[in-house]
Amino acid sequence: MSDTGFARLPAPPYYAVVFSSRRNDADPEGYAAAADRMLELARQQPGFLGVESARDAGGFGITVSYWESEAAIRAWRQHAEHAEVRRHGRTHWYAHYELRVARVERASGSAGG
Amino acid sequence: MSDTGFARLPAPPYYAVVFSSRRNDADPEGYAAAADRMLELARQQPGFLGVESARDAGGFGITVSYWESEAAIRAWRQHAEHAEVRRHGRTHWYAHYELRVARVERASGSAGG
Repeated sequence: MSDTGFARLPAPPYYAVVFSSRRNDADPEGYAAAADRMLELARQQPGFLGVESARDAGGFGITVSYWESEAAIRAWRQHAEHAEVRRHGRTHWYAHYELRVARVERASGSAGG
Repeated sequence: MSDTGFARLPAPPYYAVVFSSRRNDADPEGYAAAADRMLELARQQPGFLGVESARDAGGFGITVSYWESEAAIRAWRQHAEHAEVRRHGRTHWYAHYELRVARVERASGSAGG
């Protein structure tokens, strides 16, 4: 994430992983530490382009990570520490989640940033 | 949005419009009323599948709307009242925004919902 929350991305095409989730109330410190660690690891992955994330006061959140290719997404999915944290998250941190993988075909934005 | 915040979507493929934005502090009532109205109108559009949205306490938000086709996205973009509200929003409500249009190729989620 940039300081303003927006990812700085190249021109399309590229890939997006849209992760929508509702947190339960459990373990906010453990969750925050894992989220920071996953961001640190993702930034080191080949093909990682950026990420944007927002969570509302009710615990519903959307995180969109951006990748150069499907191969890059697959490699991140297979990262051992990431896989272990996902397993933990499924049973400990989320009431529910949905994940969608998409190919970004066009993009636009307001001037500046 | 469902009661839980999650869109109930068919199996892919379908299309996603990822709208990331940072609100300024202006006109919260006007913005909220317009957001409600746009959701009401979008639901009436042919090819609208669902929407998910989260905004954090700092004003950074992500809204993902889902559509059957690119033609459905184009028709919504050309909707006169929607176009007018977008014009207003660009100059009155947002410090910055980014919009990405993507083709969802696969999806998964946790059980239940």
